[in-house]
Amino acid sequence: MQYVHFSPDGRRRLLGVLDGETIREIGEMTLEELLAGGVDLRTFGRTRSAGGAEYASDSVSFLPPLTRPGKVICVGLNYADHTKESPYEQPSYPTIFPRFNTSLIGHQAPMIRPLVSDSLDFEGELAVVLGNGGRHIPKKHALACVAGYSIFNDGSVREYQFKSPQWTVGKNFDGTGAFGPALVTTDELPEGGAGLKLQTRLNGKVVQSANTKDMLFDVASLIAILSEAITLEAGDVIVSGTPAGIGWAREPKLLMRHGDVCEVEIEGLGVLKNTVQDEAIRG
Amino acid sequence: MQYVHFSPDGRRRLLGVLDGETIREIGEMTLEELLAGGVDLRTFGRTRSAGGAEYASDSVSFLPPLTRPGKVICVGLNYADHTKESPYEQPSYPTIFPRFNTSLIGHQAPMIRPLVSDSLDFEGELAVVLGNGGRHIPKKHALACVAGYSIFNDGSVREYQFKSPQWTVGKNFDGTGAFGPALVTTDELPEGGAGLKLQTRLNGKVVQSANTKDMLFDVASLIAILSEAITLEAGDVIVSGTPAGIGWAREPKLLMRHGDVCEVEIEGLGVLKNTVQDEAIRG
Repeated sequence: MQYVHFSPDGRRRLLGVLDGETIREIGEMTLEELLAGGVDLRTFGRTRSAGGAEYASDSVSFLPPLTRPGKVICVGLNYADHTKESPYEQPSYPTIFPRFNTSLIGHQAPMIRPLVSDSLDFEGELAVVLGNGGRHIPKKHALACVAGYSIFNDGSVREYQFKSPQWTVGKNFDGTGAFGPALVTTDELPEGGAGLKLQTRLNGKVVQSANTKDMLFDVASLIAILSEAITLEAGDVIVSGTPAGIGWAREPKLLMRHGDVCEVEIEGLGVLKNTVQDEAIRG
Repeated sequence: MQYVHFSPDGRRRLLGVLDGETIREIGEMTLEELLAGGVDLRTFGRTRSAGGAEYASDSVSFLPPLTRPGKVICVGLNYADHTKESPYEQPSYPTIFPRFNTSLIGHQAPMIRPLVSDSLDFEGELAVVLGNGGRHIPKKHALACVAGYSIFNDGSVREYQFKSPQWTVGKNFDGTGAFGPALVTTDELPEGGAGLKLQTRLNGKVVQSANTKDMLFDVASLIAILSEAITLEAGDVIVSGTPAGIGWAREPKLLMRHGDVCEVEIEGLGVLKNTVQDEAIRG
C-alpha cells in the first residue's frame, strides 16, 4: 500500500492511502504513531480507508511521510560512480551524516535556496523507513525491519557542506530535504528495494540515472552495520545515498535556481517533484 | 534553578529540583514539554516544588535532563588547543555533527564500551539547552534563546569516528553520550556560560582542564551562525565542543576501560560522573 500525509485545506493533516490519482482518507493518526505501535502497514490501510473521503491527489498539499522521525540517518558515498566524482576516496565503511527534522519538506513543497549561498544541489536517493528496530540486527534478519520505502531529494548547500570537515550544516538548511510523496510498503517492491531504476531530472533533463542495485552497502547491510553501534527504532529513516551526476561535480557547475523543477523518480515509488524557490528576504 | 529527571525506584520518571543533596519532586512532566510550552524555568520550579516529596540525591537514578530532544547539535574543533591535537586544520566555520537520542545516558549511568572496539574516549563539554528558537537569530538576541546549561561527556569510539570522512557513527554508540546531572537555568550562571572552569578527570586524574571562555565560537555565535541555516527549536541542545587532552591524541593513547570512572566538572553545573562498563556479550 502507499501511504501519504496530506492536507486538503492547508490546515488539517491527514493520513491517506494513495491509489493512482486518488487519496482515500484514513484519519488523523500519523505514520510515526502507527510504526511506533507496531502496526503492519501492508494491511492496515485496506480496511481503514474503506468509506474514507476521497481526494484527487492534484488537489491537496503533501507533507513528508514522516515529519518528525526519531532519526534520519543519511549515507554518503554509497555509489562508486558518485564517490569518483567527489573529493573522497571510497571508504570501506558507511559514511553517515544526519538530517534534522527541521529540514524536511514534502512532495511539491518549494525547495528553498537560501539567501546565503547559491550552491543548492540535488541528490536523488532511496529512503528506507523502519517498522522495527533493535541493536546488533543480523544481516539475514535486517530486511524484516523495513516497513517501506520512499524517495528523498537530499538538497545540499555545497558551500556550507565543505566549510568544515563535517557536512552537517550543508545538509540541513531548512526546506532542503524533500521526502515523499508516499511510503510504499515492502510487499509492493523487490526485496531490499534493490534493482529499482532511479532518475533525477532538472527541468525535465536527466541529470542522474542509476539503479539501486549499485549501492555499495545495500539496505540489509546498512541496517546490520549501523545497528552494531546504534539502536535503530521503528520510524527511523535511512536515506541510502546518491549516484553520480550531482551538479557540483560538473564543469561548469550545475546548480539549482529559483523556478527550477527537480524531480526524482524511482521505479515503484513514484515521482518526488519540487520547485526551487529563493528564500524570502526578511525584514 | 537546577532541574533533574530522576527515578526513585527504577520505574517512575520524575522531574525535580535539585538543591544541594536534596531533590524535591515536581511531577511527571518533562523538561521537553515545559520548554516546548514556553515555560520560564527560572521561576517555574520554585512554587511547583513546594510540598513535593524529597529524595536524597544519592538514593535515586538520574536520567538525562532531556531524553528525546528535537536535535542534539554537537560542535567539533571549538577549542584551538584541541584542534592542534587533532588531524584537522582549524576551520573558520563551526564543525557540526549530531548526537542521536539513542546514545544519551544520564549522570551515574554506565558509559558503555562497545564490544567491537576498545577505543572509547572521553570529551568533557558545556551543553546549551534552548528555551526559544527561530531562524536568522541575530547574535545580540541569541543568548535570550538559552534556557540553561548542563554538562556533556561526548564519549567517542575513535576507531569508528575515523572509519569514514564523517564522524557520526563513532559519536553515536548506544550509552556513550552522558548528559547531566542537571539543567541549570541561565540566572545562576555568567552570560553565555562563559568563563567557567571545565575539568575532566579519569579515575581522579585530571585529563582535561580548560575554561569555556576559550571556545572559538562562543554560545551566542553558535546560535546565530547555526540559525542562518537551520531553524532552532525550544528543547534543542547544542554541545559546544571539547578542549585539549583527549586520550586518543596522547602517546601512548589513553583509552577508557571497564571500571574506569570518568567525571566532567564545570563550575556552577556540578559533576557528571559515569563509570565505564563493557557491553554485555549477547548470547
